[in-house]
Amino acid sequence: MVSTSTSQNSNIMSEMNEFGISIPKKYYNVVPDLPNPLTPIISPQTGEPITPADLEFLFPKQLVSLEFSDQRFIPIPEEIRELYLQIGRVTPLKRLRKLEEFLKTPARIYIKREDVSPTGSHKTNTAIPQAYYAAKEGVRKLTTETGAGQWGSALSASARFVSELLDTELLTEVFMVRSSYDQKPFRKTLMRLFGAEVHASPSNTTEIGKKFLSEDTNNPGSLGIAISEAVERAVTDQEAKYSLGSVLNSVLIHQSIIGIEAIEQLKVREIVPTHIVGCVGGGSNFAGLAFPLRIQFPEAKLVAAESSACPALSKGELRYDFADSGKLGPKIYGHTLGHDYKIPPVHAGGLRYHSTAPLVSNLLSAGEIEPRAYHQTEVFEAGRILTQTEGLVPAPETAHAIKAAIDIALEAKSSHEEKTILVSYSGHGLFDLKGYQAYLDGTLNNY
Amino acid sequence: MVSTSTSQNSNIMSEMNEFGISIPKKYYNVVPDLPNPLTPIISPQTGEPITPADLEFLFPKQLVSLEFSDQRFIPIPEEIRELYLQIGRVTPLKRLRKLEEFLKTPARIYIKREDVSPTGSHKTNTAIPQAYYAAKEGVRKLTTETGAGQWGSALSASARFVSELLDTELLTEVFMVRSSYDQKPFRKTLMRLFGAEVHASPSNTTEIGKKFLSEDTNNPGSLGIAISEAVERAVTDQEAKYSLGSVLNSVLIHQSIIGIEAIEQLKVREIVPTHIVGCVGGGSNFAGLAFPLRIQFPEAKLVAAESSACPALSKGELRYDFADSGKLGPKIYGHTLGHDYKIPPVHAGGLRYHSTAPLVSNLLSAGEIEPRAYHQTEVFEAGRILTQTEGLVPAPETAHAIKAAIDIALEAKSSHEEKTILVSYSGHGLFDLKGYQAYLDGTLNNY
Repeated sequence: MVSTSTSQNSNIMSEMNEFGISIPKKYYNVVPDLPNPLTPIISPQTGEPITPADLEFLFPKQLVSLEFSDQRFIPIPEEIRELYLQIGRVTPLKRLRKLEEFLKTPARIYIKREDVSPTGSHKTNTAIPQAYYAAKEGVRKLTTETGAGQWGSALSASARFVSELLDTELLTEVFMVRSSYDQKPFRKTLMRLFGAEVHASPSNTTEIGKKFLSEDTNNPGSLGIAISEAVERAVTDQEAKYSLGSVLNSVLIHQSIIGIEAIEQLKVREIVPTHIVGCVGGGSNFAGLAFPLRIQFPEAKLVAAESSACPALSKGELRYDFADSGKLGPKIYGHTLGHDYKIPPVHAGGLRYHSTAPLVSNLLSAGEIEPRAYHQTEVFEAGRILTQTEGLVPAPETAHAIKAAIDIALEAKSSHEEKTILVSYSGHGLFDLKGYQAYLDGTLNNY
Repeated sequence: MVSTSTSQNSNIMSEMNEFGISIPKKYYNVVPDLPNPLTPIISPQTGEPITPADLEFLFPKQLVSLEFSDQRFIPIPEEIRELYLQIGRVTPLKRLRKLEEFLKTPARIYIKREDVSPTGSHKTNTAIPQAYYAAKEGVRKLTTETGAGQWGSALSASARFVSELLDTELLTEVFMVRSSYDQKPFRKTLMRLFGAEVHASPSNTTEIGKKFLSEDTNNPGSLGIAISEAVERAVTDQEAKYSLGSVLNSVLIHQSIIGIEAIEQLKVREIVPTHIVGCVGGGSNFAGLAFPLRIQFPEAKLVAAESSACPALSKGELRYDFADSGKLGPKIYGHTLGHDYKIPPVHAGGLRYHSTAPLVSNLLSAGEIEPRAYHQTEVFEAGRILTQTEGLVPAPETAHAIKAAIDIALEAKSSHEEKTILVSYSGHGLFDLKGYQAYLDGTLNNY
């Protein structure tokens, strides 16, 4: 991309949103601001903390270095900012007036619209820098897992955009949780449209996949199994590296762009949030919004919405556990249901993770986060209400956060309190209408 | 909706886009500026022009009055502007720099992004005023047809939003072309999510539907048949009126909001388009952009992209023909393939119409519009290119316009001409990935 002075100017112009806010120049890292000591990733073999050298066989070096960073602010390279601009950042901050009217609540509800990205979710925020660093370091292929398909399509698209920008060819190979692969065929097509190769996981293309299939040919899969497959592929292919869409410190750092933008947007409108809400699977969209906001608005409550089918935050045990069901990767310290926990096939595939990002668990164990777990039917009902009032169909994952926001708004109505709720609107549900169809037909399993 | 002075202010503030452009206060009507005499709609029984009284049994009065208007500018009621604001207007004007770079063309390509509406297309521009006038006049239900499902979901959503605004209950009943109903089940779910009742057309719920089914139980349907069913339902239900998503003068007037906004957006950026491009089924999104632009930029070429499977503009005969295959409705004067023309089941359901809006045909017959017809495979290839370069997946209908824009940009490259192409980006293709899947699998029928 040749930046002439003309295109520079017009970039800068189009970079400005309605309030003159531009794309952040730095990420925020919560590590120096943790309430509890940092818990390192450990090796299951030695029980010792993983070193950067241990991770570099799996991840690009720049990403590994970020993983171990204790710097509060980390500069965002200019080319990555350009790519963020290309995918539609700064994302809008929108007030849900029609939802408020429908609820007859004194509360004000705002969403940070991460659904406007090319693949419909916040996942591009970390996919772009991950693909960028990989391509810069000569990696030829990124392998990854995906639940609902949000992450896989974000990485496929980002690899494509980075390839165009750097005039190279970065491929993607995606292992997609089988229950989502079957429920959401369109996500698969979207990934292929961006040039990715996609397998249903467990697949018969890896040893770990074959093992799970031999035990149960109808295994619906899980994020844990798919991670194992993608890791195995990266380890056995010299030119490939692995890419993870959540959980890691580095991913949470990338996602901080959500919160940093939001702070600026709230500031110019003179809004002070009382509640910060996000859904939690691995934890990255929640952390992306909540961590920067926590510093700016220390009085605000942090509310994490999760699935009752996979209640790691509210019922998980805080301990070291394998990050993946296949026990190939390292152990992380988080709230876990156990790496062998069988997660029901809820439509919110992105929330089907047995554990939690260590940084999120750090704040949770300090009492700084309030978890709320929701059943599938009430979540889709919240999605229907949002659709009918605001014309926005949330992803089932995101609908958990909307459900929490609605509950808080109704509590405000009962208690006659003024509340200002800010929600991470992590993704749209246009590929999840099969779940909505089951909900409308009354055939939804209420996990 | 109670507009306090505070909410007024914040509405006005959020109404402004990055260039301070606000929602137009008037629609534009091409009738006074036609190159040829206006051709009235005629009654098939009498052969005489239809009068307003003839249409009022079918449509809300306000709409009928608009249908016969010869005023150049028509005020947009404040409540409709409020609803336009709610659905995300002013829509963005975006330059496709990455596509230009990929094509290595000196041409500049801009799109007017109608895909950002809640249901993903330009159709809400007319659905909102139609639902608004119906509700104001005490209509309880709107019946309609839909091809790809864009129109049906736009009307369902708009009826919902209008019901909230006016504190009433306006229902929708949608007859969806069976080939799309089968290919695009998610559109059906979206309509239901907004509260609509949806039938596959031909259906066994109307006399005309039963007739078509008795001749061929596998009839894939067409817009013409579905129109007949929706009209029959409206005529036989006292409290229902019919709603049409294209073709009518009134619809083209509503869609002029696209072009009026675009003129303002081009002006502040000092852009002078040389080519105005849109896809044509009935003709409303094309006319919506092209008609106002034609007055402001008389030197610009108007290019209409259509399906080779349904080439009404390039191969149709200019004459009076039934607007619907069932011959229930009136006759219109347009470029027609014949009301009994069997249209192949291309994925671009919205282009499967045997005739053309009279106002579009008026300009076409005067040599003011250049039609270009495209085969299905090259259209999906254009969609893939746009996805990989810009991260935007166009609807198959819209991909016809993108194909035309790419061709014009490549012609500019050959001839070393400076060209500035403005495209009506009528809708996204996130519900059309089955077509893309067939394209990627090489199983697409190249109609």
